[in-house]
Amino acid sequence: MRFFILLLIFITTNFFAQQNEDSLQIRKIYSYHLTKGRTYANLRSLCKEVGARLSGSKQAVKAIDWAKQAMIKAGVDSIYLVPCMVPHWVRGKKEKCEVNNNNKTETLSVCALGGSIGTPVNGIKTKVIEVSSFEELEKIGTEKIKGNIVFYNVSFDKEFIHTGNAYGKAVKYRSGASMAVKYGAVASITKSMTTSDNDFPHTGMMKYDSLVKQKIPAFAISARGAEKLSSLLSQNKNLEMYLYSDCVTLPDEPSYSVVGEIHGKEIPNEVIVVGGHLDSWDLGEGAHDDGAGIVQSIEVLAAFKKLNIKNKRTIRCIAYMNEENGTRGGETYTESASKESKKHIAALESDMGGFSPRAIGVDAKQDTLTYYKKWQPLFEPYYVFIKQGGGGTDISKLKGIPQFSFEPDSQRYFDFHHTADDVFEHVNKRELELGAATISSFIYLLDKYGTYTK
Amino acid sequence: MRFFILLLIFITTNFFAQQNEDSLQIRKIYSYHLTKGRTYANLRSLCKEVGARLSGSKQAVKAIDWAKQAMIKAGVDSIYLVPCMVPHWVRGKKEKCEVNNNNKTETLSVCALGGSIGTPVNGIKTKVIEVSSFEELEKIGTEKIKGNIVFYNVSFDKEFIHTGNAYGKAVKYRSGASMAVKYGAVASITKSMTTSDNDFPHTGMMKYDSLVKQKIPAFAISARGAEKLSSLLSQNKNLEMYLYSDCVTLPDEPSYSVVGEIHGKEIPNEVIVVGGHLDSWDLGEGAHDDGAGIVQSIEVLAAFKKLNIKNKRTIRCIAYMNEENGTRGGETYTESASKESKKHIAALESDMGGFSPRAIGVDAKQDTLTYYKKWQPLFEPYYVFIKQGGGGTDISKLKGIPQFSFEPDSQRYFDFHHTADDVFEHVNKRELELGAATISSFIYLLDKYGTYTK
Repeated sequence: MRFFILLLIFITTNFFAQQNEDSLQIRKIYSYHLTKGRTYANLRSLCKEVGARLSGSKQAVKAIDWAKQAMIKAGVDSIYLVPCMVPHWVRGKKEKCEVNNNNKTETLSVCALGGSIGTPVNGIKTKVIEVSSFEELEKIGTEKIKGNIVFYNVSFDKEFIHTGNAYGKAVKYRSGASMAVKYGAVASITKSMTTSDNDFPHTGMMKYDSLVKQKIPAFAISARGAEKLSSLLSQNKNLEMYLYSDCVTLPDEPSYSVVGEIHGKEIPNEVIVVGGHLDSWDLGEGAHDDGAGIVQSIEVLAAFKKLNIKNKRTIRCIAYMNEENGTRGGETYTESASKESKKHIAALESDMGGFSPRAIGVDAKQDTLTYYKKWQPLFEPYYVFIKQGGGGTDISKLKGIPQFSFEPDSQRYFDFHHTADDVFEHVNKRELELGAATISSFIYLLDKYGTYTK
Repeated sequence: MRFFILLLIFITTNFFAQQNEDSLQIRKIYSYHLTKGRTYANLRSLCKEVGARLSGSKQAVKAIDWAKQAMIKAGVDSIYLVPCMVPHWVRGKKEKCEVNNNNKTETLSVCALGGSIGTPVNGIKTKVIEVSSFEELEKIGTEKIKGNIVFYNVSFDKEFIHTGNAYGKAVKYRSGASMAVKYGAVASITKSMTTSDNDFPHTGMMKYDSLVKQKIPAFAISARGAEKLSSLLSQNKNLEMYLYSDCVTLPDEPSYSVVGEIHGKEIPNEVIVVGGHLDSWDLGEGAHDDGAGIVQSIEVLAAFKKLNIKNKRTIRCIAYMNEENGTRGGETYTESASKESKKHIAALESDMGGFSPRAIGVDAKQDTLTYYKKWQPLFEPYYVFIKQGGGGTDISKLKGIPQFSFEPDSQRYFDFHHTADDVFEHVNKRELELGAATISSFIYLLDKYGTYTK
């Protein structure tokens, strides 16, 4: 009994001593990012010196070089590029959307959706059929839809707390063109995927159903535009719309993901991945999506170096190419990783914007979650939960290892996501830095204690 | 033993059943605020139809009527006004701050601090002595300071996670005029209390030390202006500055706090207070400070009414007058409450902006905190902690009862606080609404379970 008590005291003391050591180290990590980190300066540089960087574009090539330089500055031990062939979609001339309202031409804010074909050179002029769901589309049927434009006026579900869930529910309508063409539509317009009511159209990937031969141009309309259009249609069912887009898909282009790492000091053969995606949509500057994730991931490595943290395992920062319209970088990195002698043990992605940290999402069942949940008290001074969630588009290709996501506050993300307004000015310095600090701290614990094993 | 086990099962089952009932009710509360609430519409109306509402101003009178109408619309059972005499400080003509740099006049962004006297009608023109602390001021001493302007160039401490703590540390320099005049200074300029580096000067209350007879004009300079000024001074120690302000303190004015309540259905004699302050600074629209707290508090009552929640206790919304420069509303409300037959059992204040909810702060010792911490699992789906903290300037006058604060994310608060940029457009609809939902949910639990008793 006495031995048992002594053992208990030892274990408890040890536990608290470790908690205290970790708590101090995490405090240092946060202080580093808030006072010395280059996260914000790097984001300014990526947004203003490189700017929008859609896969296959010249700016994407520039971004690859930018990432290499930023990783070198961060002090990584080695850098390499992982090649991939990426889609090369080009928007071309500015889109047009006009309706005639009482002999007055009104312009509505639209943009072509990524992957869409363009309209004929003279555009499309015809009537608009508004629907609020695929079910309604089916009910209206071919007779009324044939030769017309289908307008998917589907709003975000406001009841979700995490706006990403509302996005997940509505985003299928972005690929509604193939469904519309089945009923004879000549174009589709989808209300932008947003919680806001502003006038920016939100682009994003649309896919044509491979089983449907015919393709029609697909557009997104701003939330304000959708409201206006719906209101005009309620007054005049025969309203005619003129639509024009100039986009085209060119042959695939060679591109690269950029990988930088700091070697493990004890178990260098085990790799922990932290990353985001380097490509962005062609509108805006890709500041929140996903410049934030890129500069945070790079700064994680910088923090380990600058704070002289002796990481046991290899920590690898990946600036993935082509998350937005193909995930080719995620695929080829995973292929390349499968041929390595090193073993991946965990991966974390930051791809939800540079807002204040709210949680680390763990892609795991309850017993596994309990393991990571034990770290939550260390994050409470920073208002961060450890919770179910996790993963990310790029790292999802790395099967069979624990996946984590950095979860910033989601309320403003879809104000900017995929728009011309996703610019550096909408990222708050401290919010971005706190994100980098949260990720660094979680990677620190993952490296120190390893992942859950049964 | 069997009885004990049965009792345990009963207690446990009961506990989980209650948790589940509460969880469903809280989900309804959040849904109400996100889909049907008037929080955002009310804030637009307060900001755009009333605007800035400094105590003693015509707009403050208008705000009182606005609050009454908004409470009536919310469906409260009764409304009354609690009178108070408030300070009446008037800014007057726009302030001026100019320096001569290589024969070029440069204008720096300044504003008078609330409560300051004005400069002589022709302004002040003299040299500037920069200090980074009161200690440095003392070290420099009378010989160099006499007849000059003291410039407190003190930055926010970036290492604090909650920016309010950095504010708490730096804010004493806003009242640095009396310290400066001891060494013969003729005016003081304080770097704005902000985490940002923009060009808005931040006003706020300054107090003259009652033991120091002489008063000098006190200004705040924007963060960018402070950087510019410091840079110019480093090149030219004899730089001359021209300062002008027109402000004056008029006799106190009669004013009111607005109180609305919904009666308790079981213990109407017990009162739970939820509130914010109705007055704001004269620059901007008082959107975050504290329009947000006002519209949230009003909407708490509306939620109880619209969701038909049978509150046991009386829930009272207080729109306090004069938090910014006197706390007279807090004082007279407390006086009036002490004469009531009803008993106050708890108070919560929302006065940290309309940002995403992070926590409910509890002003309590560990054992008391544990009681409220039990509710945290109910808030985890909304990413909200229950943590130590609590209180607020207005409710702090209500001594001897548990005090709570609504803690939104603090990172952007001091970008806007007390500036011309604290406008409706900088409040995100969902963030504001989630705040109202968090407060309503916590008040719901306080009402249902009561406060901690030993």
